[in-house]
Amino acid sequence: MSDVNKSAHPFDKGRLEALLSRRFFYAPAFEIYGGVAGLYDYGPSGSTLQANIIAEWRKHFIVEESMLELDTTIMTPAPVFETSGHVARFADWMVKDVKTGDVIRADHLVKNVLEARLAGDLEARGQAASPAKEDEKDKKKKKNKTAKAAAVQLADDVAKSYEVTLAQLDNFSGAELGELCRKFNIRNPDTDNEVTEPQEFNLMFASSIGPTGQHPGYLRPETAQGHFLNFSRLLDYNNGRVPFASAQIGRSFRNEISPRAGLLRVREFTMAEIEHFVDPQNKSHPRFKEMRDVVLVLLDRHVQSSGNSTLIKMSIGEAVEKGIIANETLAYFMARIYLFLLKIGINPDRLRFRQHMSNEMAHYATDCWDAEIQNSTGWTECVGCADRAAYDLTVHSARTGHPLVVREALKEPIVTEKEVPEFNKKILGKTFKQDAGVLQKHVESLNEAALSKLKSELAEGCVPTTIIIDGKTFEIAPDLLRIERKTFKQSIREYTPNVIEPSFGLGRILYTLLEHTYWSREQDVERGVLSLPPVVAPTKVLIVPLSAKEEFDPLVQEVSSKLRRAGIFSRVDDSNTSIGKRYARNDELGTPYGVTIDFASVQNRTMTIRERDTMDQRIGSIDEVIATVTDLVEGNIDWTEACQRLPAYDGVQAIES
Amino acid sequence: MSDVNKSAHPFDKGRLEALLSRRFFYAPAFEIYGGVAGLYDYGPSGSTLQANIIAEWRKHFIVEESMLELDTTIMTPAPVFETSGHVARFADWMVKDVKTGDVIRADHLVKNVLEARLAGDLEARGQAASPAKEDEKDKKKKKNKTAKAAAVQLADDVAKSYEVTLAQLDNFSGAELGELCRKFNIRNPDTDNEVTEPQEFNLMFASSIGPTGQHPGYLRPETAQGHFLNFSRLLDYNNGRVPFASAQIGRSFRNEISPRAGLLRVREFTMAEIEHFVDPQNKSHPRFKEMRDVVLVLLDRHVQSSGNSTLIKMSIGEAVEKGIIANETLAYFMARIYLFLLKIGINPDRLRFRQHMSNEMAHYATDCWDAEIQNSTGWTECVGCADRAAYDLTVHSARTGHPLVVREALKEPIVTEKEVPEFNKKILGKTFKQDAGVLQKHVESLNEAALSKLKSELAEGCVPTTIIIDGKTFEIAPDLLRIERKTFKQSIREYTPNVIEPSFGLGRILYTLLEHTYWSREQDVERGVLSLPPVVAPTKVLIVPLSAKEEFDPLVQEVSSKLRRAGIFSRVDDSNTSIGKRYARNDELGTPYGVTIDFASVQNRTMTIRERDTMDQRIGSIDEVIATVTDLVEGNIDWTEACQRLPAYDGVQAIES
Repeated sequence: MSDVNKSAHPFDKGRLEALLSRRFFYAPAFEIYGGVAGLYDYGPSGSTLQANIIAEWRKHFIVEESMLELDTTIMTPAPVFETSGHVARFADWMVKDVKTGDVIRADHLVKNVLEARLAGDLEARGQAASPAKEDEKDKKKKKNKTAKAAAVQLADDVAKSYEVTLAQLDNFSGAELGELCRKFNIRNPDTDNEVTEPQEFNLMFASSIGPTGQHPGYLRPETAQGHFLNFSRLLDYNNGRVPFASAQIGRSFRNEISPRAGLLRVREFTMAEIEHFVDPQNKSHPRFKEMRDVVLVLLDRHVQSSGNSTLIKMSIGEAVEKGIIANETLAYFMARIYLFLLKIGINPDRLRFRQHMSNEMAHYATDCWDAEIQNSTGWTECVGCADRAAYDLTVHSARTGHPLVVREALKEPIVTEKEVPEFNKKILGKTFKQDAGVLQKHVESLNEAALSKLKSELAEGCVPTTIIIDGKTFEIAPDLLRIERKTFKQSIREYTPNVIEPSFGLGRILYTLLEHTYWSREQDVERGVLSLPPVVAPTKVLIVPLSAKEEFDPLVQEVSSKLRRAGIFSRVDDSNTSIGKRYARNDELGTPYGVTIDFASVQNRTMTIRERDTMDQRIGSIDEVIATVTDLVEGNIDWTEACQRLPAYDGVQAIES
Repeated sequence: MSDVNKSAHPFDKGRLEALLSRRFFYAPAFEIYGGVAGLYDYGPSGSTLQANIIAEWRKHFIVEESMLELDTTIMTPAPVFETSGHVARFADWMVKDVKTGDVIRADHLVKNVLEARLAGDLEARGQAASPAKEDEKDKKKKKNKTAKAAAVQLADDVAKSYEVTLAQLDNFSGAELGELCRKFNIRNPDTDNEVTEPQEFNLMFASSIGPTGQHPGYLRPETAQGHFLNFSRLLDYNNGRVPFASAQIGRSFRNEISPRAGLLRVREFTMAEIEHFVDPQNKSHPRFKEMRDVVLVLLDRHVQSSGNSTLIKMSIGEAVEKGIIANETLAYFMARIYLFLLKIGINPDRLRFRQHMSNEMAHYATDCWDAEIQNSTGWTECVGCADRAAYDLTVHSARTGHPLVVREALKEPIVTEKEVPEFNKKILGKTFKQDAGVLQKHVESLNEAALSKLKSELAEGCVPTTIIIDGKTFEIAPDLLRIERKTFKQSIREYTPNVIEPSFGLGRILYTLLEHTYWSREQDVERGVLSLPPVVAPTKVLIVPLSAKEEFDPLVQEVSSKLRRAGIFSRVDDSNTSIGKRYARNDELGTPYGVTIDFASVQNRTMTIRERDTMDQRIGSIDEVIATVTDLVEGNIDWTEACQRLPAYDGVQAIES
């Protein structure tokens, strides 16, 4: 096995983006019409990568934990989002350039300008290398993405106040963002004009259902409401038992103000959401013990509020014990999310869980931890893990009158006794006329002690019992009111479950995964490789006949169909170029293995297999190689073990050159 | 093996619908808010059934034929659909009740009223049994679905004219539908009021992209445009070669006028679309020979235009030879569609291919065959297979200026010679001033023969050559014009490919599949069964412990995890009810196999396996049963073969009672 140096060259975002475009992982949607910000199409490589991530997600979450899958509609009538609070509160703050009318998201503006000034400060202090020579095109590109500030040194206390502001940025209201713009003289960096006061802009796309225009609707900004509205049916499907989880993979929409960050901030995206319904009095998780030793990197709320970013490393068992993570179920899902991300190829050293600060939290959440993954733009929220408590079920139930509750048979019925007053209605009406209701209401609202006292007064019977209400005296005759002790038996407990919600933004995960797995060959920075794990790689095996000559066709067919039967997705590349170039193209596509069919294959029924990262080649009989590659792709063996099965092939240098 | 009589009871749609609701295959979306017509949510059974149909579709089409998968956005800027013709023409005709303003789709109104009158006619002639006694609730339900007419006998020629009209219904324009309403006195059956003239209603949902409201957009009504706009990138990905196909599975939207037909007509739906790009001069298909003997049931355009519905049964080879199906590629896909539908469990006796009539065709299509599947509402279009020719690529290319063409290197360059006129510009301008352009244009437009003639006249040189254009005479001096013979070599052929488009409505297929696989046990009509093939059944194996007692837990865990490792999706049902009831519930869920863990399992490590349709039970060691059920689910063996491996279990009667 060859050694591979994956960090010979520094990460180069431009090269990666060129590769992703060239190999059609994704591209701006409607590109030939000039494109639309925040809308992207996935090509063959990207959509298959996404489909594989989804398939693994289904296995890791839905199948492993017998979750109930759902597929609900995107188009949603307005009353649903009025109730859920999205019509009133699902908004971002935007400012406008006072002269051009250009629209900018307020928190992004503050962030970009302050970060640029801090960078300029560092440069002026000589603490950062001034940027390498850039050509004009690069400069122009950058102008559209981030504010650029001159290398001006800041006073120490100013620099410090910028840093504190940035650490708390997610915590500011619209008015506070406006205040910051004035205080720090923040302007539109493209024009240097002032900006308006922040205004709210609702992020839901609006439409209208049916031909009359009378039924406003929105495209859902999350799949979650579809789970909540179907809660009764799901509970029933689960034989009335709690806890259980529903899961849904589907498209959601957010009409972002000015998306500029590629796949990291888009207007249409695929989500995978789990809603785990749990007894609010018992948020333990039956499988917590399997996860308690998983160690996560945590950035909690208190640390952030104090204006810094110190990370702690801790097992989830300890974090729950210390109250850093609120409960077992939340922690269990954080660990499961962590394991999923590792499985698909995310670098664990660039993954942390950050707790939301109080103002930052969505209106429905009581606690929230984001799985943030580091990429070239910084730390990016890729999975949210929120405790939505009983918020959604409660508001929908109140609005519709449909009970969204669990009714649980108590093992031991709860038996209680209490005094119950009963009026003789006929006498009551005759005696007190219009005041009858006042008296009845008063007596029925008395507590246990007062009722007992009244009962014994009535029992004595000799003097007429009197009650004074608002200064008016009521005389109670013994035949008017009976108070009796009754027994009550409660055998059902009724409650609104709480919801723990892990919510995955698949596009962000996909893009970050591409950054984490991209590198260039030591000998040639132009030769990019995507080291995607076989489980998610779009194609598992590339079949490379020496040429498109007919004599290779039967073997190509045989190998294709044997791989297909083994459930391994392969592609044939018989294009008119050298084997080395074909392998290089497939390194860019992230294909982990390649098999070559040549004249030796025709004569001896042998085939070589090449491993993408090391470029090692081994040789064996066609069936041996197929069996080995199947085991490799299914994760039964690794390349070291494969090398023990198959001898080295020494034609390797000739082919890769 | 037991014999099973699946047709002991007539199909009962009410019972099926109750089952589908009870077992949450699907339900009206926003049900607790009163629902919205045409929007449905899929529950755990329905969404898993759909996911399995999609997985099989991916294998059958994408993997088998190395198609290029895409995932493009739903939100689309308006210019795209202006170009594609959808803004102008993707519309249905609607009429309004003149008094209530209720909106009805015009063709559906004509269809429902005429069909109801024909049914009334048959009843009056005593040819149809009068409907069985209905309770009030049933009647009320029906009123909302179809027009109901009194049992009135029609004149023979009137009945005939109704039948002819119905056979041609898809062929009428809006004006013709209005004419029919007047001619046949068709009114709103709910109110008996007249209806307005038909108006067009565009079926796309409209929205607006971005915060300024300046960018109108639509939700796509089909996924196809996403393929066309990415054509250049796809061609490049395929190394410039044609034919190739792209494929996409995704949500589309149509704002139907008044959807009332359950999953068969909805406002939001999942489609699976293939766009196969092909040389317009060669629509043969390389794998046609594999399909040529597949026999399909065809209903062609000419038969329908003559007002009847005679079906023909023919191999696609013969149909292409006779020109009934226009080309090999179209026929190839029709056969592949047929095989796919059979694989997932559609009854081939209720499947036909109907060719569109000319007025019925979508604005972009030149030929179209629908796979129609019969269900309780009649024949329903479930898959369209259209030849869109070069329509879409041509219009997008014209609008954007981006060439959407194939450039094919010719094996033999085409060499041509022709006469080329060349003016001396200086003399031309000086001599003819403002008429210079007229002369030049005229000469350049001359054909080969005229140029030759002019050339020889110029060569003679003695008399001045004259040309008369629009009565004006031009005298041509020899130094003004040279005509020379030049050689041209064309080594590239450039063309716009044609597109063959198989387009699947997955919800319609799913619902029809449920109708085709539903039946009731002979001994009890209340015991419904869904005989879904294992390949699509939501759960493959039900694990049934005798009770929820702890002693069964280790075996339940073992069987679950062994099945999971074998890739077989199972569920445990340890709910507090008899094994018979649990099996009955799972018959309704379409689960093909059940395994029971009881005291014998604990003692002897044996397990019984039950087949859903026959209710047969066999017994074997736990590992034998797991191996057998794996082979059954993967389609390696059938139940007869399984019975040869495992002996009968004679406790069967006790358990199912």
